[in-house]
Parts: sequence; C-alpha cells; structure tokens
Amino acid sequence: MKRGFGSDNHSGIHPKILDAITQANVEHAKGYGDDEWTAKTVALFKRIFGESAVPFLVFNGTGANILSLKSLTQPFHAVICAETAHINVDECGAPERFLGCKLIDIPCPDGKLTPELILPVLHSFGDQHHVQPKVISISQSTELGTLYQPEEIAALAELAHRYNMYLHVDGSRFANAVAALNTSFKSLSADLGVDVLSFGGTKNGLMIGEAVVFLRSELAENFLFHRKQAAQLYSKMRFMAAQFEAFFDNDLWMEIAGNANKMAQLLAQKLSDINAVKITQKVEANAVFAVIDPQLKQKLLQEYFFYDWNEARGEVRWMCSWDTSEEDVVRFVEAIKKCIKA
Amino acid sequence: MKRGFGSDNHSGIHPKILDAITQANVEHAKGYGDDEWTAKTVALFKRIFGESAVPFLVFNGTGANILSLKSLTQPFHAVICAETAHINVDECGAPERFLGCKLIDIPCPDGKLTPELILPVLHSFGDQHHVQPKVISISQSTELGTLYQPEEIAALAELAHRYNMYLHVDGSRFANAVAALNTSFKSLSADLGVDVLSFGGTKNGLMIGEAVVFLRSELAENFLFHRKQAAQLYSKMRFMAAQFEAFFDNDLWMEIAGNANKMAQLLAQKLSDINAVKITQKVEANAVFAVIDPQLKQKLLQEYFFYDWNEARGEVRWMCSWDTSEEDVVRFVEAIKKCIKA
Amino acid sequence: MKRGFGSDNHSGIHPKILDAITQANVEHAKGYGDDEWTAKTVALFKRIFGESAVPFLVFNGTGANILSLKSLTQPFHAVICAETAHINVDECGAPERFLGCKLIDIPCPDGKLTPELILPVLHSFGDQHHVQPKVISISQSTELGTLYQPEEIAALAELAHRYNMYLHVDGSRFANAVAALNTSFKSLSADLGVDVLSFGGTKNGLMIGEAVVFLRSELAENFLFHRKQAAQLYSKMRFMAAQFEAFFDNDLWMEIAGNANKMAQLLAQKLSDINAVKITQKVEANAVFAVIDPQLKQKLLQEYFFYDWNEARGEVRWMCSWDTSEEDVVRFVEAIKKCIKA
Amino acid sequence: MKRGFGSDNHSGIHPKILDAITQANVEHAKGYGDDEWTAKTVALFKRIFGESAVPFLVFNGTGANILSLKSLTQPFHAVICAETAHINVDECGAPERFLGCKLIDIPCPDGKLTPELILPVLHSFGDQHHVQPKVISISQSTELGTLYQPEEIAALAELAHRYNMYLHVDGSRFANAVAALNTSFKSLSADLGVDVLSFGGTKNGLMIGEAVVFLRSELAENFLFHRKQAAQLYSKMRFMAAQFEAFFDNDLWMEIAGNANKMAQLLAQKLSDINAVKITQKVEANAVFAVIDPQLKQKLLQEYFFYDWNEARGEVRWMCSWDTSEEDVVRFVEAIKKCIKA
Repeated sequence: MKRGFGSDNHSGIHPKILDAITQANVEHAKGYGDDEWTAKTVALFKRIFGESAVPFLVFNGTGANILSLKSLTQPFHAVICAETAHINVDECGAPERFLGCKLIDIPCPDGKLTPELILPVLHSFGDQHHVQPKVISISQSTELGTLYQPEEIAALAELAHRYNMYLHVDGSRFANAVAALNTSFKSLSADLGVDVLSFGGTKNGLMIGEAVVFLRSELAENFLFHRKQAAQLYSKMRFMAAQFEAFFDNDLWMEIAGNANKMAQLLAQKLSDINAVKITQKVEANAVFAVIDPQLKQKLLQEYFFYDWNEARGEVRWMCSWDTSEEDVVRFVEAIKKCIKA
Repeated sequence: MKRGFGSDNHSGIHPKILDAITQANVEHAKGYGDDEWTAKTVALFKRIFGESAVPFLVFNGTGANILSLKSLTQPFHAVICAETAHINVDECGAPERFLGCKLIDIPCPDGKLTPELILPVLHSFGDQHHVQPKVISISQSTELGTLYQPEEIAALAELAHRYNMYLHVDGSRFANAVAALNTSFKSLSADLGVDVLSFGGTKNGLMIGEAVVFLRSELAENFLFHRKQAAQLYSKMRFMAAQFEAFFDNDLWMEIAGNANKMAQLLAQKLSDINAVKITQKVEANAVFAVIDPQLKQKLLQEYFFYDWNEARGEVRWMCSWDTSEEDVVRFVEAIKKCIKA
Repeated sequence: MKRGFGSDNHSGIHPKILDAITQANVEHAKGYGDDEWTAKTVALFKRIFGESAVPFLVFNGTGANILSLKSLTQPFHAVICAETAHINVDECGAPERFLGCKLIDIPCPDGKLTPELILPVLHSFGDQHHVQPKVISISQSTELGTLYQPEEIAALAELAHRYNMYLHVDGSRFANAVAALNTSFKSLSADLGVDVLSFGGTKNGLMIGEAVVFLRSELAENFLFHRKQAAQLYSKMRFMAAQFEAFFDNDLWMEIAGNANKMAQLLAQKLSDINAVKITQKVEANAVFAVIDPQLKQKLLQEYFFYDWNEARGEVRWMCSWDTSEEDVVRFVEAIKKCIKA
Repeated sequence: MKRGFGSDNHSGIHPKILDAITQANVEHAKGYGDDEWTAKTVALFKRIFGESAVPFLVFNGTGANILSLKSLTQPFHAVICAETAHINVDECGAPERFLGCKLIDIPCPDGKLTPELILPVLHSFGDQHHVQPKVISISQSTELGTLYQPEEIAALAELAHRYNMYLHVDGSRFANAVAALNTSFKSLSADLGVDVLSFGGTKNGLMIGEAVVFLRSELAENFLFHRKQAAQLYSKMRFMAAQFEAFFDNDLWMEIAGNANKMAQLLAQKLSDINAVKITQKVEANAVFAVIDPQLKQKLLQEYFFYDWNEARGEVRWMCSWDTSEEDVVRFVEAIKKCIKA
C-alpha cells in the first residue's frame, strides 16, 4: 500500500526510532523495565513533564487509557467523556470491562467538553443508587482533529478538582497538540492541572509504545500491579524505552508531529477552494474531516484508502502522518480533482 | 550487562528477526492485522499447525494466556494447573482478574500434571455451590525446564475431553519443546488433542510477540472482541507478523530454540561433576535448576545475574537463550569453580 | 411514617403474603430451592408464563436485572436501553460492573424505546473496535409510569431477533402492566417474543423476592452458577417461594396491582382540575408525574414524603401501592389544595 | 421434611423473629435503610460491638463475605484462607469473580489457620509479578465445627497488621462461637483486632439477613456503593432490621446459638460409645463430623437427610440448629443404633 491518508498508524517506524531499537539490541538486559534504557527514559519524561511526573510504558492506547483510569477509579465511579471519545466508541467496551465503571458520554459537536456541558451530570454525589462521577476524560488533540486551548483545559481541571474528581487526558496525539500550540509538554499538562495523561507514541512514528504519565506522583502508587494484571507489562522493555528516548532526542517529536500538523494544514488549504469538499471541523492538528458525496468517495477509494467518519452525513476522515510529504498532499488533491471531473 | 543466564527474555532480538522488522518498514499498511504481513503469517501458522488452526497475535505471555483461557471459560468455571504454573504464580492474579475464574493449583514436584493428580479435583460437576472445572492448563516446556512427552499430553487431552473440558498449553517456550523432542508443532499440539496454545515468541528471539493458536477453529469465534477488550490489539501489526514470519522462515526457530536447549545440556553436563552444585530437575529444555549454598550464590551474583527459584531450599534457575554460546557456558562454569575455590 | 405516595416499596407486606410466610414456617426444609414450596412455585410460573418458561428466584431487582442480562451477554456486548431505565440510572453501575458491558442509553421522553429510536445504534456488527449490540432492555411498566402496548413489544422483539439480539423486560412492575392492559402474563411476554423477564414481587406486596423468568429455556442453561456467583442464592428459599405462591393464588396479584393502578388513575383524575399541578406523563400504571412549583413542593413535603424526579424542571413522582386507599388519595389531594391556598 | 441434622439453614424462623417481622409490618417506611428499625438496629450493633463498629445489612453469607473483602482489597491483592473455607469451596468462585483477587488456600486439618501456616505465603511483597497478600480470612466457628480461642485470633490479627494486612472473620456462625466461648461479641472481635466481620443471622433463626460489621470505621467508607453494585441492597430494609433487633433483644441469640451448641455436645456425647461412629473433629460449636461406613450411611439417609463431607473417607456432617431438641437427638441416636443392628 502506498502512502495515504487512512490513519497516522498506517505509516511505519521513523528511521531514527528504528535505529534506536537496533542500537539497543546488544547483549543482555534485565527484563520488565529494570534496565538502563528504561531508567534514562523515565528521567527524560521527568525532565519534560516535571520532576513530580511518574511515567510508565505500556503496549497500546487502550492499555494506556484503561490503566490511567484504573488508578483514578473504583467500580462505582463514573468517567465523563465526549460522545466521540475513543474510550467511548473505539475500545470495544474495554473501559467498562476493566474498570467496571459507567462512562457518561456527552454529545459535543467539535469533540470538546466544556464545564457547561459537564455540570448537568455532576449530581447525586453520595447517593448509593447512582454512579459517582470521578474522572473527566478529554482527548488532546481530539478525535475530531480539534484542540483544547490551555485555558480550556485549566477550566476543566478546576471543575474536576472542585468536585473532588480528576482530569485525565487521552493524548494518543498529545505531541501533535503540543507542536500545534507551540508550547511544552509540561505547560500543556502538569501546569494546567491535568492529573494523568495517556501519552501516545505509536501514532507518531514509534514501532510500538505508549506511556501513562502521572502528573501527581501519589496516583501512581499501585500502577505496577495494575499494569501487570492488565497484561501490559513488556518483558524486553529496553526496546520500548529506546524508542521514546529517540522520540524526545533533539526534539525529534517536534519534527514528527509538526510535519503531520503542517501537512494537514496544507491539505485543508488546498481543499478550501474545492466546492465538492466541505471541511467540517477546524483543522488544528493532523486530521481533516470533510463531507464529500458518495460517488466522489467511491472513486477516490479506488486510489486511496481512508475511513468513513459518519456515513449518514457523508463525512470522511483524512489523517496526516510523520511521513506525509508535500508531494503526497499535492497528488491526493489532484486525485480528488480528477475524481470530481471524471 | 554482559550475556548471562538470568532469563531467556534478557537476550535481545535475533538479527534475522530485527532485519524482518526493518524490511517491513516500508510505506503504509492498514492497521490491526488487515495487512499482507499478517495474512502471510496466519497462512504460515496454518501450514505449521494444520489448516484448522486459527492464530492471533498478541503482545505478551500474560495476554496470550488470559485470552486463550477466556475463550474457554465462563466466570464460574475453574482452571486446573500446576502449583508452579506461570498463570498461578507469575501473573499477579491476571487470570482471576480477567476471567473471574478460580485457579485450582495442584502441587507437582516436576511441574507436570498427570491424570492421577487431576482426578481428585474433578468433582461437584453441576453443583451450583462449586466452581466447575473446565480447563486443564499445562506448560510445555514447564516452568521447571521439564517436558511433557507426547503421550502424556494425549492422556491429559483425553481426560479433559472425557469430562467436557479443554486442554490449554502455555507454550511460551513451545518451540524449545518441539526442538527438544525432535518433532513438529502440529504433532505436539493439534495431533495430541490440544485445544488452544499460547505460543511464545519473545523468549525465542523476537522483539515482541506471542500468538494464541486455536487448534479447533470454533473456539476462536469471539476472539477478536476479547483481544480488543483485553487491550491486546496491536495497531501496527505488520511489525509483529513480520517477526513470526522470519521466525518460521528456513526453520530459524529450530536454530534458536535448539541452541538454547543445547547450551542448557552443555551447562548441565559441565556442572555434573561439581559437588557444590546439585541439579534438581531433569534438564530437558533450556533451563537448569540447581541447589547451591548461599555463599556460593552471593559470590556468583557479583559476576552474573540470575534468579532465586526457591530461596528456602537454596534453589536457583539458570536459563539459556538463543544467543548463549559455548564460550558463555564455559566461562560461567569457570566462574562457578572460581567462586567455590575462593 | 403514615401511608403516602413516596414509593411502592414503602408499603409493607400484604397480609396474605405474610400469612404464607408464617404457614411455611414449619419443621425443616432443604435449602437453596430444593424444597416443595419452590417446586410448587416453579410449576405455577410455568402454568402462568407457558411450559417453556424457566423461573428462578432472586433477592432484588438489581439482582434480577444483572442476572437476566448476564445470561444474554458477553463482556464485549452492549445493552440498549432508555436513558431513564433503572439499569442505567438507579443501579450504581451494577450492570457495567457485573456484565463488563457498555449500556447504550437512548433519550426517550416517555420512557419507551421504539425501533426507530434503536435503529441508529445498530451498526458496527463484526467490527472488533466496537461493542456489539446484543440486548434491547425495556421496562414494563416504565420508570415514567407509561406502558408499552403489546404490539409495541412485539415490534421490539422482532427487531431484536432480526439482528440476532435478545429482548429483555425489566418488569419490577410487570404485574401492574398486565393488570392495566387487562391481559395475561404469558400474552404480554412469551407470546410477544420476550426472551427474558425480570419479574418483580417486592413492589407489589411481597416482603422480599423477584424472579428471573426465561421464556426460552435454553437461555437458562448456566443460570444456577451465575446466580450463586452473583450472591443471589437464598438458602431458606421456601420463604420466598411461599410469597410468590400466595401472590399468584386466587389472582391476588390482580387485586394488588389493580388497586395501585386504580388509585393512580383516581389521583390523576382528582388532580386534573388543579392548575398548580401539571401532570407530565400519561398515567397508565401506578405512577403520577407532575410539575409543581417549589413552594408548593416544600409545603407538601412537610406532610408527605415523595421524591423529586427532575429537580431542574420541578417534576415530582407520586406512586400508588397495593395498600393505597381512596381515602389516602382524597386526603392527599386535600393536602395539596390546602398547600396551594396557604 | 421432619426436623433433622442436615444444616442449620434447614430449620425455619424463630417465632420471636417472625413476630418481629409481623410487628414491623405497619404503614409505610422509607426504603433502603432510611427507616427507624434500621436506625435502632445499627445502634444495637454499636452497643454490642463497640461504638466504632459500623454495621450494614445484606442478603446472604456470600454477599457478606464478598463485600467485607471488597472493602479490604484491590484486584491485585490475595486473600489467605483455610482450604476448607466457605469462600474457597462453597461460593462458586464468587470471591474471585467479584474481587478479581486470588485466594491462597492453605490446608489445615481442623479448619484453623495459624501464623505458622500462614508465614510461608507471606512473600513477594512489592513484586509486580505476584499477587500481594492483603487479607487473612478465618471462619469462626469454622466449617469443621471447631473454634478459634481468643488468643489465637489475637495472634492472627497481630500477624496481619504486622504485614499491613487485614483480618476478616467469616462469622456465619459467630453467635455460636460467642455462646460456646461464653464471651461477648466485642470481646471476640473488636477487642482482638478483627478488622471486619461477616455476621450471620440466617443460620441462627432469622428468615433472612446477614451483616457486615466493620470494626474500624474508616474501612466502611465506600461500603454503600459496593453493596448497591453487588446487588445486596434491600429496599424494604425494615423487615431485615427488625429480625436482628429481635435476635439481640433479651439475648435471644444466646438462647438460639446456645441451644444449637448444647445439642451438638449432647449428640457427640451420645455417639461417643458407638464404635461404628468415629467423631473426627472436636465438637466445639454446633456441628458433629463423623466417619461412618457406607452401608450405615445409606440406611440412615432413608430416615434422615444429611450431607457427605468427605466421601472419599466416609465422613459426614451433622448440624444442630436453634430448634433441635433433646428428643430430636435421642431419636437420631436411636435411629443410628437401629441402623447398625439392622
């Protein structure tokens, strides 16, 4: 399959990250994180997210999310999220299964929760008949390619803490958000009151690896046991740690995430004067959502693979990746134009 | 850390397997197993285990085990295993957590279950007060480095099926068993009545990857959903599939597992005339268990890392790996001799 | 506390049912349902719901619901219900906890699901990323005091079965529905395609007791084990069975449920010309929902206890019970009038 | 079925307890424990167990046990118990299902754990691969009819607390223990360091009802939510509370439990000179265990129902109850003698 706009996990491993795996492939190392690569990577995370940050590596995004949330909840709690949240629609019920908790999902057209949207579900605290709201979970960048501004996150953190709840960020594309907002990892998380972050690597050029980053260390207390029970403990951890090390080294992450974001901007710009393509969401990270008519979609799918987002209204999703080039964008837009004319 | 005998997951990635990852790192591929590498690997597994085999890739051994068992059980069932089984002692209760099931563990000095040992717990079928035995789970090779002979497995399968139960094999070192018994994957599993197999890659030179191999296809019916719920679905699956492809290609597995076994034999042989080292288990796969005195252990640990197996009786475990060389063995034995003299 | 309109579980035990408990209190009986009272009650249920019905007794409504649903689902399934469903809002997440499943709740102003409301969530079958819809769960009578007409239930059963799903009825007030529709238990369940029914006793004059009634016997296969695991198996079962026997004897249920329904009608009628009370739902079973102003509510609460239903819009709930008398209704309406004038 | 020795839950409701239910059956009362009967009963428990005790009522023994343990554990913890413990063998895996925890069961011939038996499993604290021991759970009186002496319980509490663990007592027959040891509820629990107690009513003359009694109030923090999620919250709570009130009133419990104990002593004494009956456990509470030959058992079963305890060694169990009379014992012994001669 040639390069396309299907997903940011359709692209491969960034060469520098693959190189890091190769470099780490020497002699023996103790398993399960008791190795020098993991130690270095933990130190790196602390440098980047603040000294009180406590990071752990896990296999995938579902694992990062259910383990983040497990550290914050008991089964009678509820997790508040956007209706479009990955934890709500794309994890086959893994959160309910692993946590035992109810997810309270709230419709929000741009994928972003606000205090106003959340307040109506903050009731029945202390009532034994009702689940107890305990976590607000947001995605940054969102599943719709939009971004929370720092002050919006701060407001949600304030709301959460006022009600004795926590703020979790599903950051499978957190690097894209940091790059797009031209800020730092710490400024966009710990400094705003985020309690725990699912931090993604796989969608940003890693072969495999996500992190759970606790921004308040006391929340990490039982994480090791939860991770093992969730079957998310990797024996040859050095090969995951080495990838993150390379990801942060010389701000490679910024190159990676920045390119994906930039290409999405370019794509959106080039599409802006094509009437047959109606962009439906602000393009703030590395995704472009658009409504196109079914015939156009069918033609285009013969050349490029991409996903329907909302079949009922003809909405599709185009994702840019670390390896998306200007030429890729240009060719794709040409293909669209050709399909329209045909 | 130099090469040692700590664990077969302390060694790195076999060069040919790392090379396969590199080869697969081209352009884009669809995620979650919908790619050509995975298709080829599935076909390979079917060729090797029989056409009715249905394989799925997962992240780690705990994941392979809980998902194998989930396809066989409901929460009121019980899983019968050896007291020393990895699922019983080394997975932090993940099976109880994920399955809801009780594990009925049976003491067996060589790590091997027999029909005679199992029969006494096969009672109370149909009694609502009691868990219902449903799976016999054995490890091949065992956690004690011993092997089930084919006829022993067949007898356990017969027992299981007679009681309307299943036989599961935890095969994190199944390749070592096949190599040691000089047989084939199919002959040692499907042909003997094994129902589902956790098939290990990570301890045999892979960077990451295990498989759940259903040998009766109807048992695989809901696996995709269970795997996703268990957070064991890998997005960039091609990089795991490519490793297994290389593992099976040109019988690389035999070279890998065969070497580990051979080095364990060599180690055992060279230790056999050292009085201070009492080997405690038959050396049939790639592990050597021995009782040594605490002083010797402490001295040796200054040069080599390895695990206590049973501190109370002074038993330690030495594992050989795909990269263990004759020179490694010779040096290690010399180190032991030096420690004894010192 | 004098008699009021707080809930149909605020009333006590119907004298004939208490008498049945007393009658059953003789000598010894085997435990856990292996007694003659339970045998008789099972036979009674079969006579009433059809010979293929398989009933089991449990402690409470939450128990009946989670056990009904457990027999129909695996953790990756989803249960579709009204937003107002008891399983969704009043069971503290017990369904998610016990089943592991996601509940897909659908807003419906009168508490009633329809095929039109359900169809939009019937998608992604076979997609490993998504929960798989498996059960439609409705309440009859609903939590809003409304009723499904028989043909409405038949349509939902047809929809469920067309998609290889099941229809569950939460019937904590099923007797009220049967009485109000002047039909029979079988006609309103088995004959319409209902698969399993949570059948309530406690809100209709029993001291304690609910039933799970499977209307397709094959679904009951593992119920005994699930019930025991859910801690819903009663040792002195005869005292629960005897209550149901009395409940069905000489159509006592009809007297009980019929009275509650009739008193709700009377209450609604007497309130109909009071402008300060706006009835918000059809009064079809034993509940009256009304909007009153906060001052009126506060005054009335000094004399009568009752629940807010929706504080935001000033909606309250008044329930009638087996022991509600015409005098109770008259006095309550007088109290309302007095509060309005005051 | 006439009175026999099958189980202490084969007997019915003590007349004074049934009378209390009848007395409570007046007018309306708020549900779910918000009533005056429950308030009185809570106060009674506090008077009896000490002011820091926090009691909650639940439906059955399984419910009491899993909820006691849920307040003490996370899923990666382990519960240590005797191999014969009810939670280990008679609850169909409900603890594993509800807690997610592993039970570590220890063989002990008289049903009693000791620090010596427990110490060998107290290892691997802090090791992410292993379940973390967190609770010692004992039964008082034990499932074998034996008793822990107060100093034995104190020693287990000391051990538990030394390792940052808890001591739970499964007291489905706790009243029998208190009566037999001629002590008080508080002296046999709170004063010895017990952390939480499952306190039985059903086997001592109640129609239905058990209590979870927290002896350290901070452990009760989330109980209400756990109880509701476990489907153990009774709506018409007054009818359960009233039973416990009657049970404690005028020391009725002592009469009830004392009689059952006394009858077991009488039975044991009368059996002591019958060679064909070999009593196998100390008779310290209300149970008699004996080995009899299969033929004798078969004959006796034609007249009296009772359970096999260990079929392999011909051991049976005879339980005495609140309503067992001297005449019952005499007749039973005569029946045994007759069967022997026949």
